[in-house]
Amino acid sequence: MKILLHLSFLGTKYCGYQIQPNGITIQQRLNEATRALFGYDCDIVGCSRTDSGVHANQFCVAVSKKGTNCLQTTIPIDRIPQAIAPHLPEDISVIGAELVEDEFHPRYDVKYKEYVYRIWNKPYRNPFLQDRTWHYPKPISDEALVRMNEAAARWRGTHDFSSYMAADSKITDAVRMIYEAEVVRKGDVVEFRVSANGFLYNMVRILVGTLICVAEGKISPEEIDELTESGDRSRAGMTAPACGLFLNKVVY
Amino acid sequence: MKILLHLSFLGTKYCGYQIQPNGITIQQRLNEATRALFGYDCDIVGCSRTDSGVHANQFCVAVSKKGTNCLQTTIPIDRIPQAIAPHLPEDISVIGAELVEDEFHPRYDVKYKEYVYRIWNKPYRNPFLQDRTWHYPKPISDEALVRMNEAAARWRGTHDFSSYMAADSKITDAVRMIYEAEVVRKGDVVEFRVSANGFLYNMVRILVGTLICVAEGKISPEEIDELTESGDRSRAGMTAPACGLFLNKVVY
Repeated sequence: MKILLHLSFLGTKYCGYQIQPNGITIQQRLNEATRALFGYDCDIVGCSRTDSGVHANQFCVAVSKKGTNCLQTTIPIDRIPQAIAPHLPEDISVIGAELVEDEFHPRYDVKYKEYVYRIWNKPYRNPFLQDRTWHYPKPISDEALVRMNEAAARWRGTHDFSSYMAADSKITDAVRMIYEAEVVRKGDVVEFRVSANGFLYNMVRILVGTLICVAEGKISPEEIDELTESGDRSRAGMTAPACGLFLNKVVY
Repeated sequence: MKILLHLSFLGTKYCGYQIQPNGITIQQRLNEATRALFGYDCDIVGCSRTDSGVHANQFCVAVSKKGTNCLQTTIPIDRIPQAIAPHLPEDISVIGAELVEDEFHPRYDVKYKEYVYRIWNKPYRNPFLQDRTWHYPKPISDEALVRMNEAAARWRGTHDFSSYMAADSKITDAVRMIYEAEVVRKGDVVEFRVSANGFLYNMVRILVGTLICVAEGKISPEEIDELTESGDRSRAGMTAPACGLFLNKVVY
């Protein structure tokens, strides 16, 4: 058996999840914390890469003793979230832990993932949602919200999402299946929720940039199908900033 | 006429509202921003002092040209929130502006104020509510919530609140009228809301510390009346940390 940790983290200060030479990452902090807790080096395998500045309400990592694919510890599994907390910075929290089989893979075994993108939609800033939303100051009307939902609905199903992939991505198979895609207003926050069997590099942020074009009347909902089919990144919207993006749910 | 600004701010980095020699305050930042916007020094009068680290969803300040008690500007009043934004740090936001009479006083003319105190009540930390809640990890049961509300109800009305005032406060008249006091659960956050015609130094934070004693069974709701009448600060609970406290509403 090995251990699957459920995390939430504020990504603002991190260069994404995955270890890299030029900055602090979530994985690096987990390496340090698990070494301190278990007393030996561990292999940490994440459910996803996330970009610099992106957050997670739920992110999963499998932890095993380095090179062994399993982990033995005398710490009861339900005590691990509190036991590891003192070894982690305040912007990373372990919110749950469970035992999984040695063969379990936190990335390949994902059934689907849900992302949420949050937009603070008032002319003035919200000091409490700084770094936790994207501030888009122009009012998004109810009518615009309807059009955004018409556009989002056209992404549901199986499509080649090359039009919504970062231009420098090296992925060749851009076919993904979107299960749900909707835009909801929650007070002064406009929220885009999207679940899929997989996501391309920057995909959710480009979908959001495209929804903003729809809100502004630059792209009509009816044009979305053709835009998707074109595979032309330059026709989609901008890449919305990382600060509004949350990995919200990982389902195995 | 002078101008009343409605602010919200994240108080984490500030030594409270009022200017003081040993740290950065909200008032100091407003002095700088209004000077930059209007081109001259201004008098800034706030609705309240707030402690170091305390936040505001709504805080009001009157702005007038230094020494004149009025302010003339060519900037349309409804444009001021956006015009002042570039001169303020990201954790202070002007959310509204209105014209008020020269005689208006933002502290003396307050009818009542509402504070909200937020407790993150899970065993693990919430990275997104860090500095925006107090983390109290022991579960507050529904039964405890009922007792907390029974205790809070006993504070309603006009009482001498000396028992709930910082021991080093110099105020001699500690009689205040509490209009509403209640504890509600919102998901994993337990929230104490209290409105009154005025508040003593540290009063809301000591009320919260006392409610925690009630939750833990150290003080019964029935003991509250006697505790209040005793005027004995040492019998009330601890002063809960500043990070959970928000000035929520100011009504004139």
